[in-house]
Amino acid sequence: MPLTPEQKAEIEEQRAAARPTRRATVPALEDMLFEPIEVLDHGFVRVIDYMGDDGAVVQAARVSYGKGTRKVSEDRGLIRYLMRHRHTTPFEMCEIKYHVKLPIFVARQWIRHRTANVNEYSARYSILDKEFYIPAPDQLAAQSAANRQGRGDVLQGAEAQRVLDILREDADRTYAHYEEMLNEDTAGNAADPGRSGLARELARMNLTLNTYTQWYWKCDLHNLLHFLSLRADAHAQYEIRVYADAMLKTVEAWTPLSCEAFMDYRMGGVHLSAAGLDAVKKLIAGEDAEAVRAASGLSAREWRELMAALGRDG
Amino acid sequence: MPLTPEQKAEIEEQRAAARPTRRATVPALEDMLFEPIEVLDHGFVRVIDYMGDDGAVVQAARVSYGKGTRKVSEDRGLIRYLMRHRHTTPFEMCEIKYHVKLPIFVARQWIRHRTANVNEYSARYSILDKEFYIPAPDQLAAQSAANRQGRGDVLQGAEAQRVLDILREDADRTYAHYEEMLNEDTAGNAADPGRSGLARELARMNLTLNTYTQWYWKCDLHNLLHFLSLRADAHAQYEIRVYADAMLKTVEAWTPLSCEAFMDYRMGGVHLSAAGLDAVKKLIAGEDAEAVRAASGLSAREWRELMAALGRDG
Amino acid sequence: MPLTPEQKAEIEEQRAAARPTRRATVPALEDMLFEPIEVLDHGFVRVIDYMGDDGAVVQAARVSYGKGTRKVSEDRGLIRYLMRHRHTTPFEMCEIKYHVKLPIFVARQWIRHRTANVNEYSARYSILDKEFYIPAPDQLAAQSAANRQGRGDVLQGAEAQRVLDILREDADRTYAHYEEMLNEDTAGNAADPGRSGLARELARMNLTLNTYTQWYWKCDLHNLLHFLSLRADAHAQYEIRVYADAMLKTVEAWTPLSCEAFMDYRMGGVHLSAAGLDAVKKLIAGEDAEAVRAASGLSAREWRELMAALGRDG
Amino acid sequence: MPLTPEQKAEIEEQRAAARPTRRATVPALEDMLFEPIEVLDHGFVRVIDYMGDDGAVVQAARVSYGKGTRKVSEDRGLIRYLMRHRHTTPFEMCEIKYHVKLPIFVARQWIRHRTANVNEYSARYSILDKEFYIPAPDQLAAQSAANRQGRGDVLQGAEAQRVLDILREDADRTYAHYEEMLNEDTAGNAADPGRSGLARELARMNLTLNTYTQWYWKCDLHNLLHFLSLRADAHAQYEIRVYADAMLKTVEAWTPLSCEAFMDYRMGGVHLSAAGLDAVKKLIAGEDAEAVRAASGLSAREWRELMAALGRDG
Repeated sequence: MPLTPEQKAEIEEQRAAARPTRRATVPALEDMLFEPIEVLDHGFVRVIDYMGDDGAVVQAARVSYGKGTRKVSEDRGLIRYLMRHRHTTPFEMCEIKYHVKLPIFVARQWIRHRTANVNEYSARYSILDKEFYIPAPDQLAAQSAANRQGRGDVLQGAEAQRVLDILREDADRTYAHYEEMLNEDTAGNAADPGRSGLARELARMNLTLNTYTQWYWKCDLHNLLHFLSLRADAHAQYEIRVYADAMLKTVEAWTPLSCEAFMDYRMGGVHLSAAGLDAVKKLIAGEDAEAVRAASGLSAREWRELMAALGRDG
Repeated sequence: MPLTPEQKAEIEEQRAAARPTRRATVPALEDMLFEPIEVLDHGFVRVIDYMGDDGAVVQAARVSYGKGTRKVSEDRGLIRYLMRHRHTTPFEMCEIKYHVKLPIFVARQWIRHRTANVNEYSARYSILDKEFYIPAPDQLAAQSAANRQGRGDVLQGAEAQRVLDILREDADRTYAHYEEMLNEDTAGNAADPGRSGLARELARMNLTLNTYTQWYWKCDLHNLLHFLSLRADAHAQYEIRVYADAMLKTVEAWTPLSCEAFMDYRMGGVHLSAAGLDAVKKLIAGEDAEAVRAASGLSAREWRELMAALGRDG
Repeated sequence: MPLTPEQKAEIEEQRAAARPTRRATVPALEDMLFEPIEVLDHGFVRVIDYMGDDGAVVQAARVSYGKGTRKVSEDRGLIRYLMRHRHTTPFEMCEIKYHVKLPIFVARQWIRHRTANVNEYSARYSILDKEFYIPAPDQLAAQSAANRQGRGDVLQGAEAQRVLDILREDADRTYAHYEEMLNEDTAGNAADPGRSGLARELARMNLTLNTYTQWYWKCDLHNLLHFLSLRADAHAQYEIRVYADAMLKTVEAWTPLSCEAFMDYRMGGVHLSAAGLDAVKKLIAGEDAEAVRAASGLSAREWRELMAALGRDG
Repeated sequence: MPLTPEQKAEIEEQRAAARPTRRATVPALEDMLFEPIEVLDHGFVRVIDYMGDDGAVVQAARVSYGKGTRKVSEDRGLIRYLMRHRHTTPFEMCEIKYHVKLPIFVARQWIRHRTANVNEYSARYSILDKEFYIPAPDQLAAQSAANRQGRGDVLQGAEAQRVLDILREDADRTYAHYEEMLNEDTAGNAADPGRSGLARELARMNLTLNTYTQWYWKCDLHNLLHFLSLRADAHAQYEIRVYADAMLKTVEAWTPLSCEAFMDYRMGGVHLSAAGLDAVKKLIAGEDAEAVRAASGLSAREWRELMAALGRDG
């Protein structure tokens, strides 16, 4: 993630400023403001702005005239109650805004979350930088045999090297052709005065999906937690999960009580189906696991998933 | 809008605090923070929190690393361009949160705007205060004869007095019965120990629609402006328009450049239909108005609306 | 729910028509089309239109060129997989539209679900009918002592009678005053020619919250199921739960496989927190319940909820 | 758009079926159902399902018990009134679903419209077909000098040929490498048994942005018209505008009255700003155009836009 000196200076200038406000502030998040958290080989997530804190959740739940907060222990109890019983609207009262740099194929997954605000760098209007995602060697995974949308073992030796070579060379070549078709020098003039240059909105189609793009992305806390529950999950593709992991750290700094409740009730929890719950009741009653399985009506796959959730061999 | 001394103290306590932040701040809006703006006889709007400023619109439009701002004149030009060409997403990057006290029948119109976050005071959980909206005498309008959903002249004399008496007496009586059915004293004990008291979630159904409720309401700038374009409009019901007018003042303080562009391009502008545009072209070319009208295909009503927009007698 | 003869005739006329279509049709839901399902004392839910069926879920999940369906058993397996793993978007591909008549205080809860389309009968434009919700005697519940937003025992004897009298008389009186203020006869002329009549948009504020309103409400299957999971739940207020129960029957007729999966994985299931899951593992391992509780870190309330979910005494 | 014989057979099978329904049907749209409308070189739009018709808009606006329709002329008048006064919710009561095949860079613009339901073909789960968008020679436009996100003249001769060669060769090469990295034959076995094959979710990153993808996309009529107003507009990129144009034809068949009102009031109309309206009033009053311009406060660009809208030389 090589920021240019100009970009670094712009960030430092923003970090240096401090102004008084009557709004709720969160010092732990203020410390992180504007600073890029590196993700993948050239990407980042950085917090640009935020609104509200754990107290704002409490305040909205109580529709109070003041801060809503009484004692931290009461706030914690209320926040956990809200999270446990899926009273989600008070968590919508906090808002956060990120600047994210990410490969286009990751952006295409991310954008599926519709309850957010987005401004993406326009490749109709501007020229994309020459930056591509090339997986680290330990992420060059084979197709999973068991899961059609999962990863298997890491590729080794010549096959791994060949993949890296392909990804680098194709990205380099298609980008070089992108520049050739655009025919613009850095000042925006024709590089080759004998040619017109293809429209930016057309030339971009020659780029590969690992090209980096960037956007401003803004979301309320409830919808952010929903996003994280899906994208920080073990089933999410690694390349988006690392962004979710980075964002989770910012949520921990921003709204520690809400984040704790989220980890306890959502991320660390498990949903049992009606049949799964029935099987659990029988297992607690000491019934034989094989008999329970046979009577449960659960498919082999569901039973395996249940046993895994309970930390048992299937 | 009689706030209790406790409520006033809570508000003052919040206003007294000042903390440093690295985020964008808007001094003109900081001055208004938490302070209720009175609306109708017992209602208010007060800004609880905000995120972003005009610069945040520019920053998102440019997807910049720093503040996005170069010169105020450039920012103004860009913001006006975005507003004119309905590039609405950068305006979604600012967010504002209000605490609003409003009659239930106004709340029922307001809630139709779905792109906002809301936490309303719960009458399942709590007991509503004894406060009702009674129109001021100059707002006691007769049904419009011309417009099925509009107002006509103001009622006078005995009819006006009778309406005020009905509204007051019915609200008083239904509230007294609400209290009687609840059977709770201020400490939450049975007022009459011989009775159980009806569940709050049921007792509330006896209240009239002019009873005040309150909520926290949070919205991004784009959707807020859309809300205001509909609710600060002359066709909106007076009782919601006064809330929109109060909020418009907060937007003026918060994002003056965006607000100016909104007033110039949305509120002060007019939309011409294809036939209306055609008629305007002919009028500019000096054609006879009556001939233009006859050839326009516009209904009598549409023609009247067009002439009104052009400041001419229909 | 006394429909007028005109309304019945309009419904019958629609039910009598049959036209050919190439679209997916669901005979079991066609049988129910337009027919009101009675809810509460004057309310109803009736299906007005629908789009898609279980096959449309499969078709969208597979992005197929044809119907998407292979064998019912394969469809069932895929739908259960999608529901289990919260792949929710294919369920958004089915849409249903209802006409609902419901008390205003129920409408105020219902409208909080923002991912639906709504057209409500306008009391600015029209005059509301004289119909109020009066609870059946077995629903006249006392306030719950244990749960601030729940119900306790049913009121008895004189207290129950007094509540019913209040609700009826206040609704009658406020409606009579509404009519008086409106001063319109059924032809829309002044009932009393000596008075102007108050604007409809104002007069309505005198009505009580148990007045019936009605709306068209349209929603996709995923968001409908989410609505039902909250409103058909035992914690929902009875007066909205009966609507959810009625709608659940229509979903059963419409998309039986999706509905079955919903009942198995959502309604009949239970969510365990991280600590709850840990406790369950220990109980299965045969540890002493009291020791498990003490070590769990769960609050007394959470432990009670967990034991209830497991069908055990707390 | 070469559909396989299997795909054609699946489509024909669906088109051949006819079932009776009590729902509103639209014969003109039934005729188009399932049939692909060709767009660009390999893309298509085809209507998969629909719900409602012009009558459903009327029905919802009136919250009626029957069809809502009285006379076509009354329906037309009401629909035009709703469109003119931006009463948008009744148009949300109609829903349509498309199956679309489109280049990825077009999909990335399209997905920005958040009020729709989408299921995209998964390149984590499946292998994308070898199909790329290559512009027709008359669409090989140069970058516009006047508009940073627009097109200028069409490229000619050697430059045009070079662009086409680049686009074809890079797409071919990156796709061949995609296949090589996947190492799967059509039966899903290893093409080269000596290699593992890269995970699908990784290999796809080597594809160029003109690769075709496909999705099911479902939207209500109001939000569809909003989409079309932006994407069928002259400022939209050609490659998405042709999709919008194709969809506009389906709307014309589906809801002719709503479509007519949309064309008259939205597409064919123009929005005047406050200053623009003021200038128009003066022009109608016969004032000198240059004097009006000088006094208007409009920028040179805005004046040009206004003159263009009025069909005059700037």
